[in-house]
Amino acid sequence: MNFASDNNSGVCPEVIAAIAAEAESSDAAYGLDHQSARLEEAMAEVFERPVGVYPVPTGTAANALALAASNPVWGTVICHDLAHIAVDECSAPTVLGGGLTLTPLAADHGWLTPEAIDSHATNRRDNGVHTAAITGLSITQATEFGTVYSPAEIAALATTAHDRSMAVHMDGARFANAVAASGATPAELTWRAGVDLLSFGATKGGAMAAEAVIVFTDDLRDDLERLRKRSGHLLSKQRFASAQFNGWLADGTWLDHARHANACARRLADGLGAAGTEILHPVDTNMVFPVLSAAAHGALQAAGASYYVESPPPYDQGLRVRLVTSWSTTEAAVDSFVETVAGAA
Amino acid sequence: MNFASDNNSGVCPEVIAAIAAEAESSDAAYGLDHQSARLEEAMAEVFERPVGVYPVPTGTAANALALAASNPVWGTVICHDLAHIAVDECSAPTVLGGGLTLTPLAADHGWLTPEAIDSHATNRRDNGVHTAAITGLSITQATEFGTVYSPAEIAALATTAHDRSMAVHMDGARFANAVAASGATPAELTWRAGVDLLSFGATKGGAMAAEAVIVFTDDLRDDLERLRKRSGHLLSKQRFASAQFNGWLADGTWLDHARHANACARRLADGLGAAGTEILHPVDTNMVFPVLSAAAHGALQAAGASYYVESPPPYDQGLRVRLVTSWSTTEAAVDSFVETVAGAA
Amino acid sequence: MNFASDNNSGVCPEVIAAIAAEAESSDAAYGLDHQSARLEEAMAEVFERPVGVYPVPTGTAANALALAASNPVWGTVICHDLAHIAVDECSAPTVLGGGLTLTPLAADHGWLTPEAIDSHATNRRDNGVHTAAITGLSITQATEFGTVYSPAEIAALATTAHDRSMAVHMDGARFANAVAASGATPAELTWRAGVDLLSFGATKGGAMAAEAVIVFTDDLRDDLERLRKRSGHLLSKQRFASAQFNGWLADGTWLDHARHANACARRLADGLGAAGTEILHPVDTNMVFPVLSAAAHGALQAAGASYYVESPPPYDQGLRVRLVTSWSTTEAAVDSFVETVAGAA
Amino acid sequence: MNFASDNNSGVCPEVIAAIAAEAESSDAAYGLDHQSARLEEAMAEVFERPVGVYPVPTGTAANALALAASNPVWGTVICHDLAHIAVDECSAPTVLGGGLTLTPLAADHGWLTPEAIDSHATNRRDNGVHTAAITGLSITQATEFGTVYSPAEIAALATTAHDRSMAVHMDGARFANAVAASGATPAELTWRAGVDLLSFGATKGGAMAAEAVIVFTDDLRDDLERLRKRSGHLLSKQRFASAQFNGWLADGTWLDHARHANACARRLADGLGAAGTEILHPVDTNMVFPVLSAAAHGALQAAGASYYVESPPPYDQGLRVRLVTSWSTTEAAVDSFVETVAGAA
Repeated sequence: MNFASDNNSGVCPEVIAAIAAEAESSDAAYGLDHQSARLEEAMAEVFERPVGVYPVPTGTAANALALAASNPVWGTVICHDLAHIAVDECSAPTVLGGGLTLTPLAADHGWLTPEAIDSHATNRRDNGVHTAAITGLSITQATEFGTVYSPAEIAALATTAHDRSMAVHMDGARFANAVAASGATPAELTWRAGVDLLSFGATKGGAMAAEAVIVFTDDLRDDLERLRKRSGHLLSKQRFASAQFNGWLADGTWLDHARHANACARRLADGLGAAGTEILHPVDTNMVFPVLSAAAHGALQAAGASYYVESPPPYDQGLRVRLVTSWSTTEAAVDSFVETVAGAA
Repeated sequence: MNFASDNNSGVCPEVIAAIAAEAESSDAAYGLDHQSARLEEAMAEVFERPVGVYPVPTGTAANALALAASNPVWGTVICHDLAHIAVDECSAPTVLGGGLTLTPLAADHGWLTPEAIDSHATNRRDNGVHTAAITGLSITQATEFGTVYSPAEIAALATTAHDRSMAVHMDGARFANAVAASGATPAELTWRAGVDLLSFGATKGGAMAAEAVIVFTDDLRDDLERLRKRSGHLLSKQRFASAQFNGWLADGTWLDHARHANACARRLADGLGAAGTEILHPVDTNMVFPVLSAAAHGALQAAGASYYVESPPPYDQGLRVRLVTSWSTTEAAVDSFVETVAGAA
Repeated sequence: MNFASDNNSGVCPEVIAAIAAEAESSDAAYGLDHQSARLEEAMAEVFERPVGVYPVPTGTAANALALAASNPVWGTVICHDLAHIAVDECSAPTVLGGGLTLTPLAADHGWLTPEAIDSHATNRRDNGVHTAAITGLSITQATEFGTVYSPAEIAALATTAHDRSMAVHMDGARFANAVAASGATPAELTWRAGVDLLSFGATKGGAMAAEAVIVFTDDLRDDLERLRKRSGHLLSKQRFASAQFNGWLADGTWLDHARHANACARRLADGLGAAGTEILHPVDTNMVFPVLSAAAHGALQAAGASYYVESPPPYDQGLRVRLVTSWSTTEAAVDSFVETVAGAA
Repeated sequence: MNFASDNNSGVCPEVIAAIAAEAESSDAAYGLDHQSARLEEAMAEVFERPVGVYPVPTGTAANALALAASNPVWGTVICHDLAHIAVDECSAPTVLGGGLTLTPLAADHGWLTPEAIDSHATNRRDNGVHTAAITGLSITQATEFGTVYSPAEIAALATTAHDRSMAVHMDGARFANAVAASGATPAELTWRAGVDLLSFGATKGGAMAAEAVIVFTDDLRDDLERLRKRSGHLLSKQRFASAQFNGWLADGTWLDHARHANACARRLADGLGAAGTEILHPVDTNMVFPVLSAAAHGALQAAGASYYVESPPPYDQGLRVRLVTSWSTTEAAVDSFVETVAGAA
């Protein structure tokens, strides 16, 4: 019953097979190999157009490099105040962005709105060169709460951003889950809606260490290649990052895994709901945020379940917790979790 | 006949097996897992004492983070003028080191000497705060030319450095080859000789993407952990970097592979020498630097051999080339290479 | 009637005299001169102990360098959410601090409290290496609202900070006004209360371009000298920065000017209060924050008065404005301002 | 007999007068003042076209900001190996340029040549993204040896640079001396010859702390303003930097002072030459590099002369020394120096 994070899952068989097959041959280093060439084609198919593809080993690197490439060092990037870049990356966008800063805004259920951006940009204390210029927007899809933006919502955010000359970045650590949940295509959720760069994550979805910056704006490509290398994110055996992606994308594996994870979360939420548990956010993808009783928490701990507790003790008002499902979550684990909660009521 | 780089080799079966075995289970993210705990123990055994172990995905990251952790931002690090950090990392030590600079010195066969360091430090134009302070030394073991420092040579360099309050870093992208070649233990080649931090590379030696900063000086640990995260080099599924190391270190696999690569280089050098080919540097490990005739080069190209040519055309004086062997080099490939050269004479 | 900023004032005669006298001779560059030596002595007298003195041309430089010298690059510094470093320095502490970030907290009248710091540090989402570590506290004296911390309040803040291993910096752009207002000595307001570094500003108080980082913790000195030079803040004719300070400090000139400015603000506040104008913050030093009617604002504009308006239009609820007095403010200007407001009521 | 540096000179009466006059009034802070507006006009007149004018307090800041604004963070700037940016600025271009590096080349008498640049750029080990890209050229006018480039030489360098997409920066800490010496106009020595940005120094020429980045390429202006502020180089009472320039430029004062300094150097060189002293570099401006005998050095020291000795002891082969004249050098001091040397022969 490991619901702590999709980062805790193992590596899916399709990715392992791709790595193992590639392991037997020699090929050029630093991305000049066959797997990397094949990945460019695979991504062009996924996004229905040629795109720049820059695999890197971590989501933090993908986000930081995407922001560094699309914002001046004296800029600031609007993001959700619980965005991964704001709270979980130890200032990486600032480090790789040469002093670039973030401007976190609060928003319900992880959803930033055009109105909130407009309002902040209009009303903040702006003192010309004395203030960091607002030059970027970063949205997370699926959001930190597992909710999903529709193409229309993304387009409205991107229009607001572009009207203010802001670059639009999407943190897609769980992009697969968002695509699987939304019914929209990858293209509709990104460049067709105005997104300039995407951090496309495969790691949480079943890969080992494979994220990629996908660039829809050609003039950022040279910067990205240089920035990636100078921060140590170009792998020598880069073809194994590409191979992971190729194995994961082939035959729709990535969406199958995402659909499975989403369905597990749905089953979890429905089960908990039926047991009378309050769920704090809409369950669009693979995360569920219930409020557990202290008794349920105790029973789950005794049963060896793992998850993040987001509220501080004491727990007499209940505990807000985060449950994350993955490609490897079993229905049995879900059902066992639900039963443990139901039994503790 | 791929002698272009050990980075072009595949991944050895022992590492693939370790990854595949780990793939099937869930475990904690970001290094708080069983493989990472086991790696700490394995490294303590390799180095005969507890050490700090910070796996990262690239050698560039390992080098840059090691230097960043051990030098002030206003320092400069003496290194060989053909060191990887000086010519192949697009200023990564400067980027991750907050402006830290490098001071490359020329030296025969890749070997820096205490005399050269002393002479530079004594005679350079030093203008107090106007000049970057010399705060570090980085040596490469095996060197860029495949040569090896003895424990006594390292100790002499480290003493010179420490006498000047310089931190001592060793770039060990090919540390395994150096250990296998030298007959000395990992401890004798590092902390017993005064090395403060080691970039210990497994990738060239058979892993997929596994390098580690090994820290012999406890007060640098907190810095390293923070620096690694904020530059995006802490993997979410970090346990797979640790698993690669564990698979590679187990049962002396790493040294077996290194011995094989070294033996292939020896066989290559002997064969080329017998064919009358000049070899430019001592062949201590897995690199051979012959001077090929234009005819030999033509014959090799026709036969599909790959390697780096280091001299610019025209080639009427011959071509200086670099040949690198690896864990996956076959004797057949070596012999075929030698025969092609011999046949073209 | 220029109440826009004490930065708009000219240069006091004592400073001009010091510059002009120094202009006639030659002396060593980069701080190795007689004026700089004399300044070390003068500062030791002001603070009743030897201190490190690092003159720089701007307050932004003083703040950024002080924070850079006393915090690791992976740290974050708690400050008031309207602190100059947070809103008016275009991320300079981040730039010169190698990626150091700020954590702004709201607080009434500019006064941070130990409780607010404790509460934030205890309750924030702290995720180990994923989160910037809280390593510093920066308080402003006098605050952004012209209010003053007592020695006891500073000591309480510093104790809270030091208990959490945070360095304590004081932005003293208006330190002279705070000393003049508080009745406490410079020593009591700084190191005796636990302050580690002070940005001591003379520019607003009558100098031309003279700020200094004053260091009470010896082990930061080498860093500060290097950081100052490498960011371009060591003047070639540094002796003229020192001369400005020497002219300003001599015979208590600095406190005389500060007392004058404070008295002008008092007179302004009293006059406006008598005219029925609401004053938003206590008037401890040289700033007054009244709420003006639209009619008063119109009359003042017509009369050529200048000041910052802090509330956005429309002005039917009145305008919150900031009035700043300086060493060069005249009682006539104060009285004229008050009369204009009173006449518009 | 202070020939150590023009940085050791005082401040000329014209600049003191300008400061003192400005001191008496209030005006807007941060460059929105009358003196700064007037300076834009004065510079447009000097350069015969509108230019961007960014006064900063130090030459190090001017150089670093000019390079930061015109090069990507992943670039490297070719310069002379004894250029001030390379040896005397403690890596400031790297710090303010976000990791930008320098590529110093040796060249006789301080003069870089198109051939040297071409040769380096063609023959260096260029490994694509693994190597910092050559993106800028910085030349010094007058050079570190006091020699002057002609407009044709500058044009040839700039053409070479622009053909390689490199930005062209001129470090003009002694630009006044170069203009006075060359007979060419400021326009001919800069933008008409292809220079993109100039660090125009007034400090060595008689000001107190006044340097300016002059921008001939409009699209760099926004960057420069932001970069200046975020590094702490925008003065609050910025008008006093502008006032210094205005006082110094008015009525050709700057060129009068430069001509005086140059003439003193000429007189010094002629006198020393007549006394049989070898002079190492052409004396175009205000620097003389003689080889003194140990006897002459002893006599000068006894007489209280100050200058830099560039050769290390022992002095039995003579001492290479650097003599710098300034606006305040007297003919008496020159003659006294020459007589002391002649008397010691």
